Amino acid sequence: MNYGVIIYILGWLMKAETAFLLLPFVVGLIYKEPTGWNFLITAGICFAIGVLMSLKKPKKGGLYLKEGYFVVALGWIMMSAFGALPFVMSGEIPRFVDALFETISGFTTTGATILSDVEALTYSSLFWRSFLHLLGGMGVFVFISGLLPMLGGNSVNLMKAESTGPSVDKLVPRIKDTVKILYSIYLGMGTLEVIILLICGMDLFSSLTLTFGTIGTGGFGVLNSSIGSYSPAVQWTIGIFMLMSGMNYALYFLLLRRKFKQALGMEEIRLYLSVTIVAVVVIALNLGRFYSTFGETIRQTFFQVSSLITSTGYATTDFDLWPEFSKTILIVVMLMGSCAGSTGGGIKMSRMLILFKAARKQIQIFIHPRAVKKIKMDGNVVDHDAVRATNAYISIFFAVLFASVLLISIDGNDFMTNFTAVVATLNNMGPGFNKVGATCNYAFFSDFSKIILIFDMLAGRLELFPMLLLITPSSWRRYL
Amino acid sequence: MNYGVIIYILGWLMKAETAFLLLPFVVGLIYKEPTGWNFLITAGICFAIGVLMSLKKPKKGGLYLKEGYFVVALGWIMMSAFGALPFVMSGEIPRFVDALFETISGFTTTGATILSDVEALTYSSLFWRSFLHLLGGMGVFVFISGLLPMLGGNSVNLMKAESTGPSVDKLVPRIKDTVKILYSIYLGMGTLEVIILLICGMDLFSSLTLTFGTIGTGGFGVLNSSIGSYSPAVQWTIGIFMLMSGMNYALYFLLLRRKFKQALGMEEIRLYLSVTIVAVVVIALNLGRFYSTFGETIRQTFFQVSSLITSTGYATTDFDLWPEFSKTILIVVMLMGSCAGSTGGGIKMSRMLILFKAARKQIQIFIHPRAVKKIKMDGNVVDHDAVRATNAYISIFFAVLFASVLLISIDGNDFMTNFTAVVATLNNMGPGFNKVGATCNYAFFSDFSKIILIFDMLAGRLELFPMLLLITPSSWRRYL
Repeated sequence: MNYGVIIYILGWLMKAETAFLLLPFVVGLIYKEPTGWNFLITAGICFAIGVLMSLKKPKKGGLYLKEGYFVVALGWIMMSAFGALPFVMSGEIPRFVDALFETISGFTTTGATILSDVEALTYSSLFWRSFLHLLGGMGVFVFISGLLPMLGGNSVNLMKAESTGPSVDKLVPRIKDTVKILYSIYLGMGTLEVIILLICGMDLFSSLTLTFGTIGTGGFGVLNSSIGSYSPAVQWTIGIFMLMSGMNYALYFLLLRRKFKQALGMEEIRLYLSVTIVAVVVIALNLGRFYSTFGETIRQTFFQVSSLITSTGYATTDFDLWPEFSKTILIVVMLMGSCAGSTGGGIKMSRMLILFKAARKQIQIFIHPRAVKKIKMDGNVVDHDAVRATNAYISIFFAVLFASVLLISIDGNDFMTNFTAVVATLNNMGPGFNKVGATCNYAFFSDFSKIILIFDMLAGRLELFPMLLLITPSSWRRYL
Repeated sequence: MNYGVIIYILGWLMKAETAFLLLPFVVGLIYKEPTGWNFLITAGICFAIGVLMSLKKPKKGGLYLKEGYFVVALGWIMMSAFGALPFVMSGEIPRFVDALFETISGFTTTGATILSDVEALTYSSLFWRSFLHLLGGMGVFVFISGLLPMLGGNSVNLMKAESTGPSVDKLVPRIKDTVKILYSIYLGMGTLEVIILLICGMDLFSSLTLTFGTIGTGGFGVLNSSIGSYSPAVQWTIGIFMLMSGMNYALYFLLLRRKFKQALGMEEIRLYLSVTIVAVVVIALNLGRFYSTFGETIRQTFFQVSSLITSTGYATTDFDLWPEFSKTILIVVMLMGSCAGSTGGGIKMSRMLILFKAARKQIQIFIHPRAVKKIKMDGNVVDHDAVRATNAYISIFFAVLFASVLLISIDGNDFMTNFTAVVATLNNMGPGFNKVGATCNYAFFSDFSKIILIFDMLAGRLELFPMLLLITPSSWRRYL
């Protein structure tokens, strides 16, 4: 392993975090909060460490895929560990494990909280919590790799570790241009949402933080009622922007390039929208007269489905009170997740498609043993490696899922709580059901369980392999 | 499709069922039960249909794999539909859906019941219910294919559909000899268990029925307390025979041939026994002072683990009262299941091994991208087709699992009940947790849910593909 490059990149990450931490500090200054200075102190610590680590420029600039995965997994943990400090220093979240849980939940765009009273937080802390969603949504290494020209084409190995889905879509030949386009769409969508929320009459602070939570598909809000107490117009806005954030960004790229036919033909998007529509219609029918008006039923249903399919985790109602059938639909939708190449979580629609097509192929082999079938997606043959990686992903996903449920069940909570807590963290959802329902929080878990769930959040956001490499002893060896 | 052969084979199946139905009739005669005559009437109906269907001997004797799967799936449904008639005729299970549920539960060796009072059944019905386990455990088509020499080597395609695990182990070159060896081991093990139970002081009727339930890994008992009210000696006997029935029969073949080194080296058996030991030790530690003595703790733990890992479903205690951690271990163990080539259910240890090795290979590809790794089992390379089939199996397994949970959740029962009911039927376990716990039954489900669970039991026993072929429209077409 090229430790020189790894330390150098992590050093630059710390410098970047320094800059990020200055934003909540400024928010603290605006709202005259003394605890805002904790962000400046932490920024200072990060800067010192960052300078030290990036002092020695490595001779060899190369970065293998393994090292890319490695540095991203380490970097996310490191950044979260320092990002948790202001919460501890201000006493808002006195225990480090809790602060780390909250920070990693923000950074991985999970949105699971250990706080029972979000409204008690200072503005600077609320801003930082939500700003982590913005950073984590698109990925922070993708961003800083642009600052490090020495990496050259190898920065694709950082991007592979941070982006979602079974394969990285390079929109344009040069990786740097791809990153620019992705960030432009991301921030453009965010700007649009902020403007619409301001028009709806929301204040700037809430508009910004809720937008971070929407486009990063995070789910941290600023009120205890999540999105429940805002106007229907705000709820529709956030609901639609969540759904948009869960779509493969390749769609927007194609739309911007006026390749409408290709955009409309994207199988993943079609499946994603079909699942959403079916889920909304079936739940609305199942809810019947649960809400007083048809309009409210549709709004509540759409918002919750949109929030769960994208793994955002915002809520406008306590869906734990919904009928069992509707709750089960939500769990299934939550497992499937959003599209590859989006900021959303879950197994991803494209993986579902590959699995479905591989299963169909297997059945067809029985019917027509002599037929040679290829798995195709959007008209292109899916190569054997992608199918194999997807299969391995699913096996590991369920292995991690059941292992985690097993480990946190030591606390003695009921199966529904444990199962949905793991699904909610592993899919970067946020709330689950029962004790971790939309109106509850994760504070009651033991420290051991919180660490398991922290691992699950990271494993979910980085799509398993980087975290698995980190805990595989043989990957730490110096030789390749 | 060669409908001539299919009808002919199904005709012979009906004739075989005629013979099977005579046994509970004889039991009825012995115990002087007037309802025993219903079995004779049903036998008569089966015989008439059987003769009609096998009247025309087909010209072409060949049977493709697809047709093998097809005829087995159809045959199991047909045999169960007729096998359910005596229950309806005697009024012991007045509704046909319930009787079909009970019969399919017996035949698929699931052991899930809709009866709240098993002890109210007549001896002939109790015998029939348990005898179905004996038939279903090893498979009935494997048995009758021996009667139909015209099938020749094609009978392997019937065996593939009925046997468990990702691939059929032909123990000896000729399929007919393999069948003979398997049945000899099966019935030899059964005879041994009957003798030991008789020595323990049990009556012949109970010894026979409980042995059917053990070696077929079925789980139907003759008392409402399942195995709970028998002596510790009986419980240890049944516990050990369950564990033995969950092992790959290739092990016994190797042991009989004195190939001890090869037998001890079987990776699947090693994993199976390791999981059992770890589960027993951890649950026993977790239970602590739940039972008064250490001996009882070990006996209860071993019996329940052995029952759930083999998917038998016998119980000596209400494990729904165990701590959450122990219950979660049981769920995980239940999902993993027994060995391929055994009479047990579950995903199967060999599939777990293949998945684990494929996942490890995927991680190693990141660490050593240039290394070429082959997946090996017991020293032999696992071919690409077996890996692909296993992956497809897992995807379909979880798809069927979540689709079933979704469909039965319409009834409005809690998630734990729905989830474990599906896991318990799909793995041919029997009892689940909460409303379908060891002391409960499946009667409260709606007819629609019962049909879903019936499908799951058949899909589980026949390992998905035969049932999926049956519901795939294109497989019904006449041409191949």
